[in-house]
Amino acid sequence: MTLEQAQALDAADPLADYRAQFMNPPGVIYLDGNSLGQLPLTTVAAGAEVLTQAWGQRLIRSWNEGWIDAPQRVGAMIAPMIGADSDEVISADSVSVNLYKLIVAALRRDPSRNVVVSEAGNFPTDLHIAEGAVAAVAGARLHVVERGALADALGDDTALLMLTHVHYKTAERFDMAAWTKAAHDAGALVCWDLSHSAGAVALALNAAGADMAVGCGYKYLNGGPGAPAFLYVAKRWQEKLHNPLSGWMGHAAPFEFADAYAAAPGMKRWLTGTPCVLSLTALESGLKLWADIDIAQVEAKSAALWDIFHAAGTAAGLECVTPADPAKRGSHISFRHPQAYQIVQALIARGVIGDFRDPDILRFGLTPLTLSHADIWRAGQMMCDIVSGGEYLKPEFAVRYAVT
Amino acid sequence: MTLEQAQALDAADPLADYRAQFMNPPGVIYLDGNSLGQLPLTTVAAGAEVLTQAWGQRLIRSWNEGWIDAPQRVGAMIAPMIGADSDEVISADSVSVNLYKLIVAALRRDPSRNVVVSEAGNFPTDLHIAEGAVAAVAGARLHVVERGALADALGDDTALLMLTHVHYKTAERFDMAAWTKAAHDAGALVCWDLSHSAGAVALALNAAGADMAVGCGYKYLNGGPGAPAFLYVAKRWQEKLHNPLSGWMGHAAPFEFADAYAAAPGMKRWLTGTPCVLSLTALESGLKLWADIDIAQVEAKSAALWDIFHAAGTAAGLECVTPADPAKRGSHISFRHPQAYQIVQALIARGVIGDFRDPDILRFGLTPLTLSHADIWRAGQMMCDIVSGGEYLKPEFAVRYAVT
Repeated sequence: MTLEQAQALDAADPLADYRAQFMNPPGVIYLDGNSLGQLPLTTVAAGAEVLTQAWGQRLIRSWNEGWIDAPQRVGAMIAPMIGADSDEVISADSVSVNLYKLIVAALRRDPSRNVVVSEAGNFPTDLHIAEGAVAAVAGARLHVVERGALADALGDDTALLMLTHVHYKTAERFDMAAWTKAAHDAGALVCWDLSHSAGAVALALNAAGADMAVGCGYKYLNGGPGAPAFLYVAKRWQEKLHNPLSGWMGHAAPFEFADAYAAAPGMKRWLTGTPCVLSLTALESGLKLWADIDIAQVEAKSAALWDIFHAAGTAAGLECVTPADPAKRGSHISFRHPQAYQIVQALIARGVIGDFRDPDILRFGLTPLTLSHADIWRAGQMMCDIVSGGEYLKPEFAVRYAVT
Repeated sequence: MTLEQAQALDAADPLADYRAQFMNPPGVIYLDGNSLGQLPLTTVAAGAEVLTQAWGQRLIRSWNEGWIDAPQRVGAMIAPMIGADSDEVISADSVSVNLYKLIVAALRRDPSRNVVVSEAGNFPTDLHIAEGAVAAVAGARLHVVERGALADALGDDTALLMLTHVHYKTAERFDMAAWTKAAHDAGALVCWDLSHSAGAVALALNAAGADMAVGCGYKYLNGGPGAPAFLYVAKRWQEKLHNPLSGWMGHAAPFEFADAYAAAPGMKRWLTGTPCVLSLTALESGLKLWADIDIAQVEAKSAALWDIFHAAGTAAGLECVTPADPAKRGSHISFRHPQAYQIVQALIARGVIGDFRDPDILRFGLTPLTLSHADIWRAGQMMCDIVSGGEYLKPEFAVRYAVT
């Protein structure tokens, strides 16, 4: 593909106008929107309003003027993006904390089932939290196996199959309906981590028959750094399962100040502490951009961007670890190279921001709302230059620091 | 006291200049800073900066430019306010979630001790979370008794004495050193909830020998609605106890992406998910105001404000439920009246914002940084008018809605 061909795709791109709705730092091609999504310009005004008006002027009165329902309101905005009903999703806490709630709840459903099955190489916090969750239920244990052994790991003792829908490194996507069915056939529940899926690919939790899900607000949803996460519990389970983090915001009548906990109806019982209003406001602002977006257009553009960058990576001699079939991946592309860290640093020095993932993965988020085909073409050319010219071998690119 | 006398106190007030550093809504006397502290004006700029620069321009790079250490940095700012060392405090999650971490950790310390003792009428989420926490440890239970029975409730089976230092309704203050000693004498740990104490009264966790504490960022610390909470673990316990919410931010090497959890050294292991950066930024901004404040001046002014408002309440015929001895209370004052709700509503209609607490408590926060003696004098006069004139009996003040 030539630059002119990429520009022709941009001219015909139905999502092209969204780019101007985000802050785009000059000199940067940002291929990390799957780690931290860009700032929607409307969020600047929303942030000023919540500070100077809702907090500054209205003070405590704002709790009755929209804040107290923010977790449910934001959840209802996420619901159509993940194939859920509006009363099946709330926004609260972190992915980690929400996973703990759901894993413990699933383990306590049926004492004869006490195993959580998950995948080796799943996103670390999912496995770390599962370790913590099984310790909270007598006899429970975590069984982590390679992807190819997952089906055989499901059995009479399985309480929960916990999977990340789109893999954070490789972008491999599980077939949600098939794996949900596999869990159900074994008598288990399934919990999907949608952190790299929501806003990236079409999702249909209810159509798949899913039981539980969590996901991230700060990636494709553009909710801001450390944005509150979301939590889905299928209606049939909401009141049959119990939130182990039984805090006052999940109480049926929090302002009656009773000593004994009594769970609220519906999704409200899955709340714990006081909602983090400033961060929820930014997430709500980001989600407003998503209201009119056709996810099919997002997926189609993601595939086009992928093809351009894949060709560049292949030309540079990098090994692609992401599936070639768009239906089997999310919206990022990853390559393997022994000097992955150095290549990512050399790209950053040129203004192309991607991610390194230990030990040898270069990861690039292809966010269709903020990237043009020409951006990807240019980034691909730079990657070819850097690899084929040996630019990444400069000593300054070997200095290691923490990357999230 | 006359208005002129109150104004004379203001003229001599060493904290008088702080008021201008907060947004003060016109026509409002805000006696609810113990529920949601007012907006520091510097936070408006800090909020705009984190949005447009750190997030908007620097994007993912900001994680290495201050975000990743924000929980520890903000914790270190809180530490001197609570009598802790800078490496004993982090800011993260909510009070509820942090309490869960600490209660479960305390229960798992010694299998022969499996009882959490707390006070009836403690802040509800503390008891609700304790219910959830004991369910995570085999054989554990929660033992809730009236304040007068606490000493007798401590025994060989007590794992943890969990107390709220300043009571959310009455402002009664526990003697931290004495109750810490009582817990230790019984072989138990103590966990203090400092939500109504931090920024209100002088605190000395380490001098008292305390083991654990939590507290709130959105009250006296002026961190904003739903601000992240804080968490203290005495150095001697940090690595002997284990965070049950074992998320990636508490991992020794989160960016090595290992499947198995390995707890970080020190307070870092008490983190769970990704830090909520926007909300932490607002809290950090609020805390900067506190850096130069002498808490003895805060306590002295609080006592003076209390005397003025107490005289007004007494003149209005309200029963004060807050201790008269300043050393035995926090920085709010509460009265009992059968029509407490209506009186609070009538005050709000006049611009005096206080709190109602079920079933019959009028609660007023006396925040020395934002209130003048004249404010309190005027609010007291209005309360007298409203009660003695029967203004609160108007039907519109009986309409109930949720109040946080």
